Amino acid sequence: MAADGLSLSELTAAVEQRTGGRLAATVIGSPATRVSGLAPLAKAGAQDLSFLANPRYRPQALSSRAAAIVVGPADRDALITKKSALPPLVVVDQPYAWFAHAAQLLHPAAEVAPGIAIGAHVAAGARVDPSACIESGASVGDGAEIGARVWVGTGAVVGARALIGVDSRLYPRSVVLDDCRIGARCIVHSGAVIGADGFGFAPLDGRWIKIPQVGAVVVGDDVEIGANTTIDRGTMGDTVIEDGVKLDNQIQIGHNVKVGAHTAMAGCVAVAGSARIGRHCTIGAAAVILGHLELADHVHVSAGTVISRSILTAGTYTGMFPFDENRSWAKNTAVVRQLARLLERVRKLEAREKKNG
Amino acid sequence: MAADGLSLSELTAAVEQRTGGRLAATVIGSPATRVSGLAPLAKAGAQDLSFLANPRYRPQALSSRAAAIVVGPADRDALITKKSALPPLVVVDQPYAWFAHAAQLLHPAAEVAPGIAIGAHVAAGARVDPSACIESGASVGDGAEIGARVWVGTGAVVGARALIGVDSRLYPRSVVLDDCRIGARCIVHSGAVIGADGFGFAPLDGRWIKIPQVGAVVVGDDVEIGANTTIDRGTMGDTVIEDGVKLDNQIQIGHNVKVGAHTAMAGCVAVAGSARIGRHCTIGAAAVILGHLELADHVHVSAGTVISRSILTAGTYTGMFPFDENRSWAKNTAVVRQLARLLERVRKLEAREKKNG
Amino acid sequence: MAADGLSLSELTAAVEQRTGGRLAATVIGSPATRVSGLAPLAKAGAQDLSFLANPRYRPQALSSRAAAIVVGPADRDALITKKSALPPLVVVDQPYAWFAHAAQLLHPAAEVAPGIAIGAHVAAGARVDPSACIESGASVGDGAEIGARVWVGTGAVVGARALIGVDSRLYPRSVVLDDCRIGARCIVHSGAVIGADGFGFAPLDGRWIKIPQVGAVVVGDDVEIGANTTIDRGTMGDTVIEDGVKLDNQIQIGHNVKVGAHTAMAGCVAVAGSARIGRHCTIGAAAVILGHLELADHVHVSAGTVISRSILTAGTYTGMFPFDENRSWAKNTAVVRQLARLLERVRKLEAREKKNG
Repeated sequence: MAADGLSLSELTAAVEQRTGGRLAATVIGSPATRVSGLAPLAKAGAQDLSFLANPRYRPQALSSRAAAIVVGPADRDALITKKSALPPLVVVDQPYAWFAHAAQLLHPAAEVAPGIAIGAHVAAGARVDPSACIESGASVGDGAEIGARVWVGTGAVVGARALIGVDSRLYPRSVVLDDCRIGARCIVHSGAVIGADGFGFAPLDGRWIKIPQVGAVVVGDDVEIGANTTIDRGTMGDTVIEDGVKLDNQIQIGHNVKVGAHTAMAGCVAVAGSARIGRHCTIGAAAVILGHLELADHVHVSAGTVISRSILTAGTYTGMFPFDENRSWAKNTAVVRQLARLLERVRKLEAREKKNG
Repeated sequence: MAADGLSLSELTAAVEQRTGGRLAATVIGSPATRVSGLAPLAKAGAQDLSFLANPRYRPQALSSRAAAIVVGPADRDALITKKSALPPLVVVDQPYAWFAHAAQLLHPAAEVAPGIAIGAHVAAGARVDPSACIESGASVGDGAEIGARVWVGTGAVVGARALIGVDSRLYPRSVVLDDCRIGARCIVHSGAVIGADGFGFAPLDGRWIKIPQVGAVVVGDDVEIGANTTIDRGTMGDTVIEDGVKLDNQIQIGHNVKVGAHTAMAGCVAVAGSARIGRHCTIGAAAVILGHLELADHVHVSAGTVISRSILTAGTYTGMFPFDENRSWAKNTAVVRQLARLLERVRKLEAREKKNG
Repeated sequence: MAADGLSLSELTAAVEQRTGGRLAATVIGSPATRVSGLAPLAKAGAQDLSFLANPRYRPQALSSRAAAIVVGPADRDALITKKSALPPLVVVDQPYAWFAHAAQLLHPAAEVAPGIAIGAHVAAGARVDPSACIESGASVGDGAEIGARVWVGTGAVVGARALIGVDSRLYPRSVVLDDCRIGARCIVHSGAVIGADGFGFAPLDGRWIKIPQVGAVVVGDDVEIGANTTIDRGTMGDTVIEDGVKLDNQIQIGHNVKVGAHTAMAGCVAVAGSARIGRHCTIGAAAVILGHLELADHVHVSAGTVISRSILTAGTYTGMFPFDENRSWAKNTAVVRQLARLLERVRKLEAREKKNG
């Protein structure tokens, strides 16, 4: 973290610059105000930057002790009307995104200390950029290439002929297996396994014959892969994760899946083999996408939903069974197994009514 | 394991002592009977201690070859009425809990052999208690503190400034990342990852901007964390697991979640960010708790249930879709998509009947 | 991979031999045709072997540029009728199984380079076959036995007294804990944890008392265990995975479960403690099998299904809630909580109709 923090004028200039002018903000109050920490409105103290992105939290903003608050124009107007003595406000049309950039500036990722630690295992035929860091207990296989400023954390594994793009970070105990390729500025969290064999077997006389999984995994730039998430290599051809995809923890991506750019998945999602998921999709926690399906761009799947056929139209799709107090659930659920009969009974009532009416 | 086992009198005295008199038991039969193993009633042999906690298994108790059986008063009476020649009985009001304590005495955790193994990587600035064991391939970061009698198994990772409380055990390949704090007498199983980044991104123009996750994970005393379970660090502020919580394998706990004391979760549960789960709750296998919800104390969630709003009243809640033979399922499930219309049709039938009646 | 590939006559002879004559194939076209790669019909080039196992893809076969195509007799007839200039055909009654064998011949698993790498940690009391390979950072505990031609990948852990059967492969960072036994020709993928403690606690006065988990895990021959899958050791007695079982990634198998021979489970399945699953079953992605249940042989469970009671008859069982466009879902799902009342209303309509009719 920047030791003494940054002033609001430094922050606004830096965020404006790194977004190419997209996020230009105005400061109401003293631009010399320094912030060093981050906190939600209710917990923020005199050094903390906070934000207001939802009008529901305006009361919290009015009583917040934050050093400064990032707000949108409408919230600015509402706050100013209510109270004159406010902390300095940073006004910008996308306050949450501005806050994210400011937070990165206040909490930059740790510098990568170049060098190969004692106790790291780097094959003779691997190429490691001199600016990269390979920590103790990490392993880099033959023919692998490790780009500039890459961090390979303690105990992480990079397989033979794997490529790790510049500025990517492999956290302790993450695994990138042979021949897989990770783009630039990616983050792979601890316990993630990229490139294990896909689940491919041919049945014969009640036994399973393994089909060698000879493809790899290709991950684009700016991808984040959560802890203990697994992405299988392709059977023939590659499993593909496009640029900007964000995968939470404990996700399973089957062989030959394609995940389109800037799609985000919450924890514990399962995507079966050969599914093709579009760009800019969001998949809720523990949703399941069955194999060989296609999801269009901008499809949003709710948590706990099983997607069992292709979705060709953008929109939000849900299949969550509603929970209930256990006794009510049991009574109502018993009827689920009679629904077809119930429908038939209603049809007959209608038919007889019509006949008799 | 105690080589020759223990006598029933030794066991009853020891369990009574370690529970402060809470579990005082009476032996029917010879208190000198020695037991060394543990087995269920049907499989127990002449050295094994077994237990009867459910009246349904009384026939198994009557024919068991166990060295001794732990029973409650009602089961004792029922057994004695049926058969005179029984194995010795240990009679106590909580036979399963007594059995658990006796099992711990018969199978104590392996002694921790103090010392830092060759091939362990301990940073110069780490403080390791001389009674702790750091196995080969394990890694302890700068500023970390490892308490008395802690076991850090082969290949486990303790990040910078992390704290591991006395008598805790980190199994091989478990990971506790920077700044996280584990209490006393905790068990972290292999592959668990504590303190990976939470899943926090601000959307801007179809892209995701990472919000640095600057909180940590704080785990209380006597917590057990299953294999490959993940607990994310907080965005701002900490993720908190209170004393006595038991988490099974493959669980995902999102950032800033709070899990109340003595709550237990079965395998594959997903808890989304900022959920607040009460004390003494139980969460069934593969249940999903959505984000920013609150669950009161003593809430019990059935397996496979998605909790999509807060539960403020203790009780049991379920949302499991009933399975069926595939053909019946298909027929009944087709009606689910017509339920609103079906309800409307019934309403109309009722209305016309009333008008005509 | 075989550098220049293999000819069709070499392949047909080799597959026939390794299947004891079960898969005898006929070549239509030149048996001297060489293949070196594998590809689906639409992507195959002049060196690639491809296959047609589903009549739906006949048009792709007709336009494929593959070096050769494996087909069944019916598809051969259909293709030949449509077009005279086809690539060579390998005709066999089980084309997908033949393709799997041929693929193994074209892409044999890498040879195991015998020896214990520098930086591997092998306990003095472990027995490692001289033909086995223990890679750097791997760990083998006291009393463990490593069979002939076993591969223990970088950072993998074999606990004390564990047995690894001949020709098995433990991928990087997989964990087989103390006393567990793995059969011959098994594959354990990265991040899998075999033998963590089962989830066993006795409640007492609102707290949980751990029950030592003193059983182990016993895995048969020809078993494949996916990345980050967990199999818990038994409480008393063992957890058993029989021969030929195939487990995909992120599966959780609880203590004392038995999985029958040649059963296959897709990703993210959860099997709770003491469930007994038959032989030749298939369990779909993210299905949940509750504890202490029995599934007969040849039971097939669909993805996303929660099995809450025993299934004693072979067949296919499903309990997937149908997904829908979110608005329709919300309308229909609201009725689920009124189903018992709806049924009652229909009953009353019928009763009154009967009375009045």
